[in-house]
Formats: sequence, C-alpha cells, structure tokens
Amino acid sequence: MATNYTNPSGFPEHIPSVLQEELRIRDIMRSVYESYGYVPIETPSVEYKETLASKGDISKEVYTIARALAEGDSKEDDRALRFDLTIPFARYVAQHFNDLTFPFKRWQIQRVWRGERPQAGRFREFYQSDIDVIGNGSLPIHFDAEVVAMVHEVLNEIDFGGFTIGINHRKLLQGILKQFGITDLENTLRIIDKCDKIGLEKTINALEESGLKKDEAEKLMNLLEVKTPIDEIDTFISQIEANNDLIKDGVSELKAIASLLKGKSNKNGKIVFNPKIARGLDYYTGSVYETTIDGYEKYGSICSGGRYENLAGKFSNKELPGVGISIGLSRLMYILEKESLLPFDKAGVTDIYILLLNESQRFEANKVADQLRSAGIRTQVSHDGEQKLGKQFNHAEKSGAQYGLIINEGEDSAGTMTLKNLNERSESIVKSVEEVIKIL
Amino acid sequence: MATNYTNPSGFPEHIPSVLQEELRIRDIMRSVYESYGYVPIETPSVEYKETLASKGDISKEVYTIARALAEGDSKEDDRALRFDLTIPFARYVAQHFNDLTFPFKRWQIQRVWRGERPQAGRFREFYQSDIDVIGNGSLPIHFDAEVVAMVHEVLNEIDFGGFTIGINHRKLLQGILKQFGITDLENTLRIIDKCDKIGLEKTINALEESGLKKDEAEKLMNLLEVKTPIDEIDTFISQIEANNDLIKDGVSELKAIASLLKGKSNKNGKIVFNPKIARGLDYYTGSVYETTIDGYEKYGSICSGGRYENLAGKFSNKELPGVGISIGLSRLMYILEKESLLPFDKAGVTDIYILLLNESQRFEANKVADQLRSAGIRTQVSHDGEQKLGKQFNHAEKSGAQYGLIINEGEDSAGTMTLKNLNERSESIVKSVEEVIKIL
Repeated sequence: MATNYTNPSGFPEHIPSVLQEELRIRDIMRSVYESYGYVPIETPSVEYKETLASKGDISKEVYTIARALAEGDSKEDDRALRFDLTIPFARYVAQHFNDLTFPFKRWQIQRVWRGERPQAGRFREFYQSDIDVIGNGSLPIHFDAEVVAMVHEVLNEIDFGGFTIGINHRKLLQGILKQFGITDLENTLRIIDKCDKIGLEKTINALEESGLKKDEAEKLMNLLEVKTPIDEIDTFISQIEANNDLIKDGVSELKAIASLLKGKSNKNGKIVFNPKIARGLDYYTGSVYETTIDGYEKYGSICSGGRYENLAGKFSNKELPGVGISIGLSRLMYILEKESLLPFDKAGVTDIYILLLNESQRFEANKVADQLRSAGIRTQVSHDGEQKLGKQFNHAEKSGAQYGLIINEGEDSAGTMTLKNLNERSESIVKSVEEVIKIL
Repeated sequence: MATNYTNPSGFPEHIPSVLQEELRIRDIMRSVYESYGYVPIETPSVEYKETLASKGDISKEVYTIARALAEGDSKEDDRALRFDLTIPFARYVAQHFNDLTFPFKRWQIQRVWRGERPQAGRFREFYQSDIDVIGNGSLPIHFDAEVVAMVHEVLNEIDFGGFTIGINHRKLLQGILKQFGITDLENTLRIIDKCDKIGLEKTINALEESGLKKDEAEKLMNLLEVKTPIDEIDTFISQIEANNDLIKDGVSELKAIASLLKGKSNKNGKIVFNPKIARGLDYYTGSVYETTIDGYEKYGSICSGGRYENLAGKFSNKELPGVGISIGLSRLMYILEKESLLPFDKAGVTDIYILLLNESQRFEANKVADQLRSAGIRTQVSHDGEQKLGKQFNHAEKSGAQYGLIINEGEDSAGTMTLKNLNERSESIVKSVEEVIKIL
C-alpha cells in the first residue's frame, strides 16, 4: 500500500547531514561569486516552450506542465520546466536589458529538470551553479580568465582534493583540423571529444574511418594528446605553425587568458591547456573549459563552459557576447558522497545544548539560550526536562553539540552553571553567560 | 514575434537589487532557524500524486508534469509539482524515520507551485519558509512557544516595521462555540475566520443566518473580538467559564505557551491572543497562529501555522505529532516591495572597485583584488582599462561600490595607491593593501 510514499526516482533528496555539506558548498560558491562583484539572479522554474526551443524543436527530455482545468482558464500547455540555466538567463538579460548594468555579471544556483533515464550521477532534477558575464556589443577577453579563476577558487575552497581545469580554444582546434585538411569539422570534433572516454587507439581508428590517413591521424592525436600547464602554453604554440587565421586568433586569445592565470595553478587545482577539448558544436565560439576530479575522471566533467558570441540573439536585436561556466553541483555532490571525498557525518547544527534539571528551569534556560544565540552560538534547550540527565546527554550528542550546559540549583551552587565539553568529557563551573561565550 | 520572450505570468522574477534583499531575508531566516538547532532539509520539486493527495482527490490547482515519450520509458504521469512544503515534509519524515533524531526539528525554504489565477500577491510559483518540529509519540507544548518566538525573531530582524502575531487554540474556540450551543462547528468557524475581512456586522448577520440568536451572536463576537497581549491572557480567561473539557485543555495549553513567551513582545512585533483565529478545519488540532503587518492587514496573513496531531499518519504507522509555522516568503516580499517597507535600491554586491590607468595594469590589479577578497572585501576590477577614468568611475558607482582604488604610476607615486570614497567624494594616498583593508 505505502510503496509509493517515497521520493520519485531521479528526484533525489539528502538526509540533513549531507544537505548541510551541500549548503556549505553553496555558501562557498556564493561568497566567491559575490567577492568578484557578480550579482544574484533567480529565474522561474517554468518558461514558455517557445523560449526553451532556441534551437528549433523542444527536446523530448523537457518536462511540460499541465493541470486540471479551472473553469474559463487557459490550459498553460505552452509552458515547461527549464532544462538549464543558460537559456533562461539569455531571456532574462534581453527582457530586463534596461535595468541591468553591462558587462552584466551574474551568479545563479538553481534546479533544472530533464526527463532522462536516471543513472549513476545523472538525475531528473538537479542543481547547477552558473556564472556568466554578458557584454553589450563587446566583451573583453580578460573575463574568460576571470571565470576560470573563480571556479578554481570555489573548487579549492570546497577542499575535496585534486582537480584539473582544462582550457582550450575552439578556433585553435578548428584551425589545426583545417591545417590537417579536415573538412567535416563537426564529425571530427565529435570523435576527438570522446577520446578521453574511448582511448587513443579507438580515436585514431575512428579518424581513419572518417577519411584521414593513419599517419596523419597519429600525428594529429600526438599533437592534441599533450596537456600543458597553462603557464607553459608557449611550448605548445611553438610546435604548431600558425598558418591560418583561426589558429592565429585562438593562439592570441589563449595567450591573453594564460597570462592572466599565471601562478593560479596550485597543488589541489591544476589549470592546464588541453587541446582536445571540443564541447558542443553549435554553442561555443572561443575559449572552452572542462574540469575533472583527479583520479575520478571516469565521472566526466563536473564543470564546463566557454565563450559564446551571441547567446541572447534569439531574444534581442542587440549583440550580447558572453562567457560563462556552469558547475554541476548535484553531480559534484554525488561524486563527493559516493567516493567519500568529504566527511558527511556531521550531525545537526547545534553548538551548545542546555540540559534541564527539571521542567521548571525552562523559562530561565530559554533566557540563557537567547543570550547565547545573540552571540552567534547555535543553542538548543533540552526538549524534556523530566528526562534523566543521561538521556538528555545522549540527545545532546546526537544533535552534534560539542558543549552541554546545566544551570545549577541548590544553596551552594546557585547562580553558577556547569559547562561540559562533550568531546573531551571534561567540565568546568562558570558564573555567567559571558564566560560561556568566551570559552566557546 | 518576440512577444512571448518573457517570464510566464504568475511565475515572477526579480531584478538583482530586489533579489539581493530577498537573499538577505533568507539568510536571516536560516540563521535564526539554525541558532535554535533546526536542521535543513530540501525535498524534490516533484512528488508522486498519491503522496500529494493526502485528503482524497488531488486538487485542480496542482501542476502535473509530462514529457515527450522516450522509447521504452514510462510516462511519469503519476507525478506532480508539490503545492506546499508540509505534505512532502511528512512523507520525508516517514521515509527517513530511522536516519532522524526526534523531536525532529527542520527548516525548509523552497518553492511551491499552484495553478491559480495570478493576482496581487498571489503567484503560481512562490517561496515558502517553513519550520516544524515532529515528535515520536508525543511532543511537549513548549515547542508551540518556540516556533512563535523564532518567527517573531525573524520578522523583527528583517526590520520592516510593526507586525502582530496572533495566537489562538482550536480547542478553546471549539469549546466556546459548544458553550453557545453551536453544533455546526465547521460552518461557524468558517464565518468567524472571515470576520477580519468582512467586518463585525456582517459576521453577526451570518451567524444569525446560521441559526444563532442575535443577542447570542453579539455576545459571542464581543467575547472573540478582544485582542489581548499574550502576557495578559489571564484577563480573558477570567471572563469565560471553563465548563467543558475543550475549554479546559485549550486554556491550559495557551497558558503554558503564554508563560514561555513572556516579555517577548516588543514595539515592532506584538504577540497577542486572538480568539477569532480558526485556520483550516481539518488540519490543526491545538494552538494556531496568524501574522499580519501592522497597517497592511488587507493583505491577510503573511505567516501562519499551528499544531497538528498526526500529520504523517498517511505515511507511517507511528504517532508523529507536530507543530510548525510557514512564512509566505514571496507574499511577504511582494508587500514589502509594493508598500516600500524596505529599501530596494542597493545596486550590486561590490565594496571596492579598482580602476585601471591602462590595460597593462590588469595583472597587478588582479593581485591586489585577490588580497582584498581574501580579507572578505567584495572587489571588482574595471572591465576596460582603456576607458577614460570618468567612465570607469560611473561604472564603479553603478556597481554600488563605496570605494574606488587606483594603482599609481610615475616616479613620484610608484608603489602607492589612491583610495577614493565615492560617497564622500574624498581621497587619500595609501601605501599597501593592508592599509586599504584597515580603512574599509
């Protein structure tokens, strides 16, 4: 009977201790984004289908909404849940153009929906965390470096271990393929994009099948296989002849980006030039990024993005070039939890737990609790003053509190409190709330 | 052509400066909730229809989801968007029962969806901010006082002006009606509940129509019309004869709640006993709450709740009594904005804006910016170092920054920076980033 009383498959939820970790991560993101002057936006979950269908037909994976008809009301069947934060952002910029300051730098952490078959790390409802900058008419290249630096800072602060941000330039890659005489760019880029998944040998075979000679395919892949620290990009550039404009443009922009990222790479977060990165074909027009967790590359990119020449073109007559990065927050959380890359065992959000000798202490205990809370200390008062102290201590520990506090009674000890350090199993007598605040 | 490229009606979105204010309010809520040891939960936007239909048929206002069929996949037509946070919370508690500590205290700030006709302050997609406590088997009465104290603290900290939290007890009200010989409780409660909207005279007329004698109706409403400060509840109680068990139970619980809220009322936030409050019939079983903004009662309650004996009964065999309050965050935001009860003109999230004498200063400026950010100062670097300084200053002001900073060049001033206070139009020479941090 009650079998269906669960969260639907693909629409995940966490127990509180895991969600607390996700909230810590979201706090880091927001704090880094705002430290760079990026402003928050949130858009509705629902958009007109026409808005979402920016590349022709609306995808089969999009969820439309419907409802039982209220009399005389419209059917609302022209609306659907958003499948990313990028299209709604482009619509938002066009719609609110006159209220925004350009370059418009925004952050947005919200849910998106895709009617996919749920599988490991792939959900029907998930969070994305996006930053984008949109220029009015033009957008300087230094923003490409800025969004990479920001994501680097975010992932570093989460502190889950090593990761690698790969950077490439679509024009450089296209220019190199052109130099190899390749005409079917779209197909070739798709083959190269899969190389990290299928391996070098299969990639070379696929390139042969698509018409390239074996030694040319090998030469191409030898060139593209090298991941160079971004600070040493000149070494790679010296290997290729810049004999077409695509290569020239790509190299010049990559050099500008690299020069601004100089010294940013560190032990945890490497920033590398990876000439194999292609990303989706019909979207990005300049620099592109992909990020993997070191040792867990099998999960694919946790964060990717790039520059697009005119994303809002469908919604506005203005030229609105942009650059942005999207962190797959739910995907990242899934890997961190599955691979135990973070501790998820922190119970509760309580710093101190006030135990009661009896229920009539509650009003007084509440006043102590209010003083502690005013000082920023998260405080719980025992839910049952008639329970034995041992039971109350159990509950204090379950709530994650490091300290317990008892308001003493009796002639000798009246006016004092006993502060217990629950981790160290030690206790001390304190005479005022101010003293407690000092110790915590 | 582009007429539809807007957010759909009833699915609102803010410009960044208004959203920033909403984020400030959400931060206050979370901070207060966690200061009382309430843990966060988030549930999926989508639940099984069977879960949502806890009172029989699913409402016409509920949005179901659907998608273009992927081959061999199920239709997912048994799922819908949640219309509140309470039913999903009850399902969550039953499902994760073994992972939770009871009394389970949770906070939840998320969106809900209702296919209503949009009107002033009423949306199809909106935020609610809920706190609830669920006990395993029983739940002490002091939690009723706690949730009221928490909401009082939240609304006080938002600092929009005066508000009134009204408290009543369903049993007390039912007992009084019983004393007046009223048998059709449901209908009478509905009439009384509307009194603040339709006025006293019409209420008395409606009570007459429902069978009460005019003088009895007047006597009843005279009794219920008094709003007593919660600290003076004994005055009201002395007026009524507790000649049935409903009244006795109600009075005793109200007294316990009132004794814990003693001294909490203040100038901005009054806590009053309001015996007219009935709330929905089939839900609450004990104390009930409603909150209005002083002078703006016409918008109705911005925050309401109460105690329910066994909300999770459909999902679990266990007795899980609870008490909770829900703040209508989007409704509150709507009133605050419409009635200008808060300033919404704060532009941007930037503290200091670094201007560039030329583009070649960017790498050095970025390093200064990184140092400032490490100190928690939100910093932007000018997007275009080739622009004249006047233009850059305009942009700094538009971004909301209070300070501008210039890295000086030239033999005399090398190594110094000029710090401009953009509000006071004053400037000073500083010699290090540390000095800037001290001044800010």
